[in-house]
This record gives sequence, C-alpha cells and structure tokens, in this order.
Amino acid sequence: MLPCFTTQFGNPSSATHRWGWEAEALVTIARERLAALVKADPAQVIFTSGATESISMVLQGISRKGPARILYSSIEHKAVLDNVKWLSELGFETVEIGVDGEGLLKLAQLEDELKKGALLTSIIGANNEIGVVQDLTAISSICSKYGSLLHLDLVQALGKIPISFSISGADFVSLSAHKIYGPKGAGALIIKDRSALTPLIRGGGHEGGLRAGTINVPGVVGFGRAAEILKLEFDSVLSHIEMLSQRLLTQLMDGLPGLKLNGSQSTRIPGNLNIQLPGIKSDRLIAKLGSKIALSNSSACLSGDKNASHVLRAIGLSQTEREASLRIGIGRFNTLLEIDRASELILEAYRAQI
Amino acid sequence: MLPCFTTQFGNPSSATHRWGWEAEALVTIARERLAALVKADPAQVIFTSGATESISMVLQGISRKGPARILYSSIEHKAVLDNVKWLSELGFETVEIGVDGEGLLKLAQLEDELKKGALLTSIIGANNEIGVVQDLTAISSICSKYGSLLHLDLVQALGKIPISFSISGADFVSLSAHKIYGPKGAGALIIKDRSALTPLIRGGGHEGGLRAGTINVPGVVGFGRAAEILKLEFDSVLSHIEMLSQRLLTQLMDGLPGLKLNGSQSTRIPGNLNIQLPGIKSDRLIAKLGSKIALSNSSACLSGDKNASHVLRAIGLSQTEREASLRIGIGRFNTLLEIDRASELILEAYRAQI
Repeated sequence: MLPCFTTQFGNPSSATHRWGWEAEALVTIARERLAALVKADPAQVIFTSGATESISMVLQGISRKGPARILYSSIEHKAVLDNVKWLSELGFETVEIGVDGEGLLKLAQLEDELKKGALLTSIIGANNEIGVVQDLTAISSICSKYGSLLHLDLVQALGKIPISFSISGADFVSLSAHKIYGPKGAGALIIKDRSALTPLIRGGGHEGGLRAGTINVPGVVGFGRAAEILKLEFDSVLSHIEMLSQRLLTQLMDGLPGLKLNGSQSTRIPGNLNIQLPGIKSDRLIAKLGSKIALSNSSACLSGDKNASHVLRAIGLSQTEREASLRIGIGRFNTLLEIDRASELILEAYRAQI
Repeated sequence: MLPCFTTQFGNPSSATHRWGWEAEALVTIARERLAALVKADPAQVIFTSGATESISMVLQGISRKGPARILYSSIEHKAVLDNVKWLSELGFETVEIGVDGEGLLKLAQLEDELKKGALLTSIIGANNEIGVVQDLTAISSICSKYGSLLHLDLVQALGKIPISFSISGADFVSLSAHKIYGPKGAGALIIKDRSALTPLIRGGGHEGGLRAGTINVPGVVGFGRAAEILKLEFDSVLSHIEMLSQRLLTQLMDGLPGLKLNGSQSTRIPGNLNIQLPGIKSDRLIAKLGSKIALSNSSACLSGDKNASHVLRAIGLSQTEREASLRIGIGRFNTLLEIDRASELILEAYRAQI
C-alpha cells in the first residue's frame, strides 16, 4: 500500500496519463486477487468503503423493485437490520426468520415464508457475535427454488470458511477488508447481475456505474494483497486459530466448570468464542481487563450499549445469561503465550468477582 | 497514519478496551484538526469515504422532505448532477441555474428561482475544471433570504480559498481528503443541523447515527493531519502555487500568442489552468505527453470520455474551442523546474501538431 501514498498516487479514473494508468493497473491486480480468493469473476467485484456500504447498496439498491417482501434472519448484523427497517418504512413487508438455540436458521420457516414469495433474502453466513455458520448450500437452494434473490453477509466468514461465489448461488455477497487483516475503509460487494441494483453513491460512473467516487487505491491494494496472502496461507492460519481457540476454551472450562459456549459447538468459525461465565455480570470483568485484553459482550458496533445483543436473545438466552456472556476473538497473529495469559487473567478476574 | 496499520489497529467503536479507546482518541484529534481548518465545531464533522459520498448523503438525505424544488448550477460536479437526476426521477423539480461566459453564477436567475421556493440549493464553490470561485457570501445570503438550505461543494476550494463554515451560512459542505494531500478514501460532510438528513449508509449508528460503518481510522487520521499541515502552511503554499501557475501561464502565452484562458481570470483558484490551444485538438497533445505530464481536457471522472465537458459548454465554448482546451493542475509539490519543463513540452507538442 505504501507507494500509493507517496509515488504512485494517481487516480485510476485519469485515463489520459501514466499516473492514472499505473493506479488503474494496481486496482486491476487487487480486483483479480480478491476475485481469486472468493472464486468470482473480477468483473463481479465492486469495491466499496466497507461491508456496511456493500450491505446498504444491496438493500437500498433493490428498493425500486418494491414494495415487496424481504426475508432476513433474527441474528443479522445491525447493518442489515437498519436497512431492513428502512425498507419497512418504505412499505416493504419485512419478515424475520428465527434461529434455534444453537443459532442455526430455521430452514422450514424460511421455506414457508419463501413460498409466499420474496424479492430478497438476506442471511449472515457466519455470525459476528456467536460465530455460527449457516448451511449456505441449503439456504441458497431453497431461495433459488422459490425465486428469491439471495444476499449473503460473509464479512465474518471470509478467511474462516472456504467461499466460492460461483457455486454459492448467491446474487450478492458483502465483504470487508479489515476482517482479513486488510485496511479499514475498504470493502467489496460481489454481484452476479449488475443490473439488479441501482447505485447508492452516485457520481462519476466509477466501478461500472454502480459505485461512484475516486477509488481508495491504497485501501483496495491492501484488500487485494490481504486476499492474496489469505489464499496462500488459508490452511495454516486456520489450523493455528483453531488450535488457539480450542486451547483457550479448554483452559477456561477446566478453571471454570459451569462455563457454557453460546451457539453451535460444531458449526462455528474458528476464532470466535462466546461463553457464559456463570454467576457474574461480564461487563464488570470486561471493564476490569479493558487495558489488558480486548473483550466484549456483543459486537463492536453495539459495544458500550449494555445487554444490547439481539443475537443472544434470538438464541433464547435469559437476561442473566446474556449479562454473563463474554465474546473473545482469536486471530492469526495471536500467540500461545497470549492465549495462556488471557485465560489466566480471565479466570483470575472471574474468581475475584464471584 | 502508519501506526494505524500496524500497532494502533483498534476499532473506535470498541468501547470496552484500550485498543478501541486509542483509536477513538485518534479520530477525535483528526476531527478537531479538520474542524479547526474550516472553522466548524468538531461535532459538525461527519467523516465519509469521500466527497462523492458526502454529496450523495446530502442530496439523497433530503429526499424524504420532498418532492420539492432543488436548484443547482450548470457547472456542478458529476456527483451533484447524478444525484440531481435521481431526485428528478423521484418527482423533484430540479432547476439548473446558468453561469456567464466567465463561469460565474447568474445571481439574478438564482434569486428569481429562489422566489418560487426551493428546499435546497447546491453550488460548487470552486469549479473542478475551470477553477472559477463563486461569490459564496452573495449566494448564501440570497439562499438564506428565501429560506433554501444551501449545500456547498468545496472539494476544490479547500486549501485554495479560506473557508469558514460558521460564517459561510451553508447548511452542508462536502470535502475530500485527497485534494489537500490526504489519502484517497476519506472525506467529510460538515453539517449545521444533523436532523436535516437521514443517513445514506445505514448500520451500527457510527458518526452520531448519520454514517454507519467501521471508521476508516488511518484515512481519517491522514485527513486530520493534512488539515493541520494545510492550516499551518496555507499562505506559503498558496503563494508558491500562485507563482508557479502565473509562470506557466506567462510562458505558454509568450510561446503561443493565440492562447485563451477558460473561465474568469480574476476569481479562480490558484493551481488551475484551463486553456485553449488555438487550431489544435488537445486530446492528441494530451495523449502524446501522457507518459510525461498529467494533463486532461475535462475532469478525471470524465476523462477518456472525449469532449464530455458540460462545464466548457456551460460557459459558451463552441465544440472547436472545447476540443482545443487543456486542463493543467499545479500543486504544492511542483517545482520551478517542472513548470519550465512542462511549458517546453507543451509548446513543443503544440508546434508539432499545428
């Protein structure tokens, strides 16, 4: 990314000189790298400022085809929920599909609702709070059976499960660079049929007319490079994270016999632990450790808003259970030493609080 | 910006730990720096992914208050024009206000149209193609007299004319970081009354609920730093650019007696030269010099689209005159040597072509 800030600072839209051509070439490489990671065609990649923009593009971009019915799960990210609320104010019928106690989508309910017709179904592939991975093949085949467009929020899934846009059956996939160690401020929308949407950010016709504005070249270049690295190191990174997550969970369970894992044990992304610490309110523990470990009890977008997790509510947790819950993320750059130190600190703080 | 990519990579929305607090503190400093540059309150600064997003936020954000009348000048940037078109499709009455042969807004026409009522007037403070600076005090006082909201696109004006949001009378000001040597991918909307708009990008309630999405911390930090540097060096940078622009214009006029400057000679930003090279088509000259000098005949957002400049048409240029036109931008890092070399190369290419 660094040369884009200093010597290669051209605008890829400048079609009349070398600096523009060089920038355009860098964006093309980044587009190819991201496309290769998610097995899409480079022409299907639209760069955005982040996944929230991608999600807003999809849900607002289809609004002209309505009012119609929209389906979404009860554990969607706030970016989907807020746009669904906006569609509802526009006169759309917005139908929430529930999840079971493990966080898995109720497929029978989805099919029942799809039978009544739906323009779009929006599903979070891997949940940001409890890490639960949905059965995307089943969801896509039901949506396709009943003719609903499918939007998958794969922000948390990218880098944690293999993604193939071409065989996913999805019409739209939202992605974010900083979830795969790329820079903040870059995201993408992968789109099957470009004519399905009208643009959200309007102007000079960039990104094939679907997303105007000078392209964030360093951001896009960083996203592309992160995608390339991830593709090469996917297996080793994943087993590293899996090992660390398992080790942390085991250590916490050993030291804390009543501990429960929120969400499915079997179909969740590695690197996500969402646990109940029986008998305490986790926010005090989180605050106490705030200068030593990055912990949360909901998502960053909601953090500070106590007990706000609609996800934990959706999987049936009581207020006491929600307040006892703690979310821990483990990443590729974490070390064994850090994991061991984190479990010590959490157990110590827990014992002091109980 | 660099530490934000490596050690200070927190999400400012993470309110529960040190990494989040540090990132939030960085964003606060950046917000104060930009506010200080444009004499606004930090609470009036909303960070966006760029000016095109800021402009889309304003023009789409007021759409719920309509259908109504919207006024805009004939030399607006494509980002305004495309959003105006969208409003027109929604049933808004969109009224174009003309400019004179120098590119200055017809204030009498503006007042006549404001008398008929307008929800919003959108004006480009300094034009991106011909650099003409409008009489913002007059425009703002007429808008205020007739109760129209005022949006100023000050993307090109920032760093070239002094800006004071608090005394400008504007309700909205759109800005871009990369026009003041900050990074691409960062912009801002300065807003007087936050309740005047609904958000464009919806989600986790960032930026006081007006712009969702994880904040692009490195981008915002770079924007803030660029604003701070600009505030300190405004006068010296401006006189440097003025001197270089005047030198280049003089050299070109000396070598090319029939040369004409497009747009006002007196009220234009330094650093912008838009000239007619009599007897030739500039695109051939631009292509010939494309590996040596960054030249254009319209804006980057339109470059490659021959003879597309609605701005040159709006100031009354014939097709021959438009096709003979050449846009040159001079920046703070340009040197005397580069200017002298550029005029040599342009004159040489002109003589070879005539």
